[in-house]
Amino acid sequence: MSAHRDSSLRARRLGIDTYQEPIVFMRADCVICRSEGFTALARVRLTIDNHSLIATVNVVHSDILLDHEAGLSEAAWHALAAREGALLRVDHPEPVESFSQVRGKIYQQRFSAQGLRAIIQDMRAGRYSGLQMAAFLTACGGDRLDLDETEALTRAMVEAGETLRWDAAPVVDKHCVGGLPGNRTTPIIVAIVTAAGLVMPKTSSRAITSPAGTADMMETLAPVALTLAQMRRVVEQEGGCIVWGGAMQLAPVDDLLIQVERPLDFDSDGQLAASMLSKKLAAGSSHVVIDMPVGPTAKLRDSAAARNLSRRLIEVGSRLGLAVRTVCSDGRQPVGRGLGPTAEAEDVLAVLRGTADAPPDLYARAVTLAGAVLELGAAAQPGEGEALASRLLNSGAAWRKFQAICEAQGGLRKPHRAAHQVDILAREPGIITAIHNRLLARVAKLAGAPQAPAAGLILRARCNEQVERGQVLYTIRAEAHGQLDYARNFAAAHPGIFQIEAPA
Amino acid sequence: MSAHRDSSLRARRLGIDTYQEPIVFMRADCVICRSEGFTALARVRLTIDNHSLIATVNVVHSDILLDHEAGLSEAAWHALAAREGALLRVDHPEPVESFSQVRGKIYQQRFSAQGLRAIIQDMRAGRYSGLQMAAFLTACGGDRLDLDETEALTRAMVEAGETLRWDAAPVVDKHCVGGLPGNRTTPIIVAIVTAAGLVMPKTSSRAITSPAGTADMMETLAPVALTLAQMRRVVEQEGGCIVWGGAMQLAPVDDLLIQVERPLDFDSDGQLAASMLSKKLAAGSSHVVIDMPVGPTAKLRDSAAARNLSRRLIEVGSRLGLAVRTVCSDGRQPVGRGLGPTAEAEDVLAVLRGTADAPPDLYARAVTLAGAVLELGAAAQPGEGEALASRLLNSGAAWRKFQAICEAQGGLRKPHRAAHQVDILAREPGIITAIHNRLLARVAKLAGAPQAPAAGLILRARCNEQVERGQVLYTIRAEAHGQLDYARNFAAAHPGIFQIEAPA
Repeated sequence: MSAHRDSSLRARRLGIDTYQEPIVFMRADCVICRSEGFTALARVRLTIDNHSLIATVNVVHSDILLDHEAGLSEAAWHALAAREGALLRVDHPEPVESFSQVRGKIYQQRFSAQGLRAIIQDMRAGRYSGLQMAAFLTACGGDRLDLDETEALTRAMVEAGETLRWDAAPVVDKHCVGGLPGNRTTPIIVAIVTAAGLVMPKTSSRAITSPAGTADMMETLAPVALTLAQMRRVVEQEGGCIVWGGAMQLAPVDDLLIQVERPLDFDSDGQLAASMLSKKLAAGSSHVVIDMPVGPTAKLRDSAAARNLSRRLIEVGSRLGLAVRTVCSDGRQPVGRGLGPTAEAEDVLAVLRGTADAPPDLYARAVTLAGAVLELGAAAQPGEGEALASRLLNSGAAWRKFQAICEAQGGLRKPHRAAHQVDILAREPGIITAIHNRLLARVAKLAGAPQAPAAGLILRARCNEQVERGQVLYTIRAEAHGQLDYARNFAAAHPGIFQIEAPA
Repeated sequence: MSAHRDSSLRARRLGIDTYQEPIVFMRADCVICRSEGFTALARVRLTIDNHSLIATVNVVHSDILLDHEAGLSEAAWHALAAREGALLRVDHPEPVESFSQVRGKIYQQRFSAQGLRAIIQDMRAGRYSGLQMAAFLTACGGDRLDLDETEALTRAMVEAGETLRWDAAPVVDKHCVGGLPGNRTTPIIVAIVTAAGLVMPKTSSRAITSPAGTADMMETLAPVALTLAQMRRVVEQEGGCIVWGGAMQLAPVDDLLIQVERPLDFDSDGQLAASMLSKKLAAGSSHVVIDMPVGPTAKLRDSAAARNLSRRLIEVGSRLGLAVRTVCSDGRQPVGRGLGPTAEAEDVLAVLRGTADAPPDLYARAVTLAGAVLELGAAAQPGEGEALASRLLNSGAAWRKFQAICEAQGGLRKPHRAAHQVDILAREPGIITAIHNRLLARVAKLAGAPQAPAAGLILRARCNEQVERGQVLYTIRAEAHGQLDYARNFAAAHPGIFQIEAPA
């Protein structure tokens, strides 16, 4: 058809990185802009051969593009499998009908299962803009999804992606609700329970609102971006793995939503549950232990919030054939000493190796959770899980298993250290009565974590400790000087990150 | 300071139009990206001389930029008053502290007046990204703002902009809640009430979710993008004007929010009231009549929704010293025959001129609302407003006044017609029982309205009319062939836009 020839341009790689959002750069005077009426920020369908996606238009009024050229951002270039000069077709996209479901939700209507399926399929197909995803997340915010909606959202997210199947039974898993900096028990738990013979093919995510996700931390010790075939080989060989789930296409819409959640820095109860459960179901897990840290500045502020989320996770999990056990834990202060990928990896290694400087709180928490997994997976009698976990850790069996898993994933490596650091000191003597998790996490993020793996901070004092004036409270590490300054300035402007009360 | 020299680049205009959102394009290997750790989509503060703003980073991996160059999008270029090669400073922006208020609202907390002021000031300063504004709008969605929050939001929006003061009293105004295509009474009302001697300095907006705003429609007849000084001159001379408010910096945050609302295509009750009232207060109005069309597919679905919004407008207006009168009107089908800037202008001209083809529903509605304004402004006794309005319209006094206002604004002009059109036909004979406003508006938008002024549609049949099979229901007009096709395809896929029941 001649219409196709008329509405096509030659693709050019402009080398512009706009992250996940595909952008097409089109000359204002090109035949397509003129005949089709596209303006800046119009949404268009791009097609090269049999690859197609929805992109946002940026209109170009200069000579960075030649006649008949259209520039593609990196995300668009890769998704279209484009080559230089390839024939690019530009069409009006179909309207995103499912967004009317989001509008209805904003006006207090409930989502139907069908509506949620349509929304998630449309997101999967790249039909939602960032603005529309932000509206969806906000509409689900707080506790605005009920159990039926949470179940339907979970199913929809599983369906819109790949699912793994394992020959073993049970397939155990562990997840943390998050919001507690440094709570990096996963690699330790995987090492313990696989040393006990359970199968635990662990897929982890990168950070959403924290200075490091498990995948970010683990990547400083071993490759985590494995293909499915590579992951299967590791699990067959060692019984477990700790890999980044993002490359597996397990509930991939969750990853798209995470990209939007990150700058917004909030979660919703229902969407949080759907996010966790859909990943576990897609990964082929049958039994999952969920760690729920509770504290005034953790993600779960109090035990009522924890009970609500716990009920939702157990009930929705049960409807979907997933046995869920929740474990409430102390979320009043960070776990371990490090915040940020490398700093947290150092804590994990210390616990696995049983060195003298291993943080006792991380040790205790990992043993408790691994015990729960061992019991849920029937590798230990009820009440005997913790003791078994301790034995496997103290004997070095877990450390040997961890090294074997890292080798199978591509080789254990030594994390590199940050180029810059600065100590933050106590301004007054007294007793530390509280540590503000969120502000402390922000310091680590301003220092560059998790994008800069060696960035973050090391805690030098904990709650209930007595400190002198001028004593080091924590050390900020950064890879770039500008980021160190910025984190230090923020820390100086927020002395209340550590609450210190004068002795009576 | 050397830090400033190190963290500066040379500005280059890349000619890339990203609409309102300022973008800075930086080479991945530039000294700033390397030392400061900026990645794609990082938010940064840009400064040239004494101009400063927050922009989003796109990282460039190609040679479209030279070493030490940073490219600016058109929005960033203009806001920074940049020149080619100007010294550009790039810093980390302060965190947007006020966004924690939005997060709180998502978790069911109320906004404080102080919190809303901080949010609106931060938006005014360009500190909110599009995603954050989408989250704010969604958090306010439905009826999630109470009266106190609506009042505080209104005040905050007035404070974050310019305000006009007029020597006259009263200063009357009129507004329509919207959602009813073609309801273009404003130019007629201004002509009538200024012909009666009242002062009505009307500032209008462009379309949010409709195929045309009053400013879009009026622009096809006369210049509307006047400066404040030009507007004052018109009002002093003629007692009234019909101009685009966007250039006046009246409650300018409203305009930023509109840019995000447009692709999301929804409003919130409280934010809608704040948007309307803040514009009226900032424009210096003392008495305002608000037209509230009610119908199953209008913005206000039923009389309960209208009562709620009406109560909110009157109560919040009264707290802020603005006399508000609401008038409920029939919102079951479009008013007049045209949808889209030019098509609606044709209807307005027909009513003002009193030609035989003037749409009677638009005439009646304009007279009712003008009557209400005349009474509220004490230019007519209670109950006598409509009769006076009719006399001024029928005598040609309003038409003469309208021409004088257009001349004062820069000259009355003739709208141009669309290059392409197609008729949509009835598939079955019967009685038209309903017209779906939203879907019909979408047809007009897909045809290119309001960006393409001559795009839109002309209704050829109305509710309660009998039609034959093959009779024309409406004619779609477009300026580009691709847009005509797209609107026609959508119309063909949605025959229910006109509900036609077979005769019994």
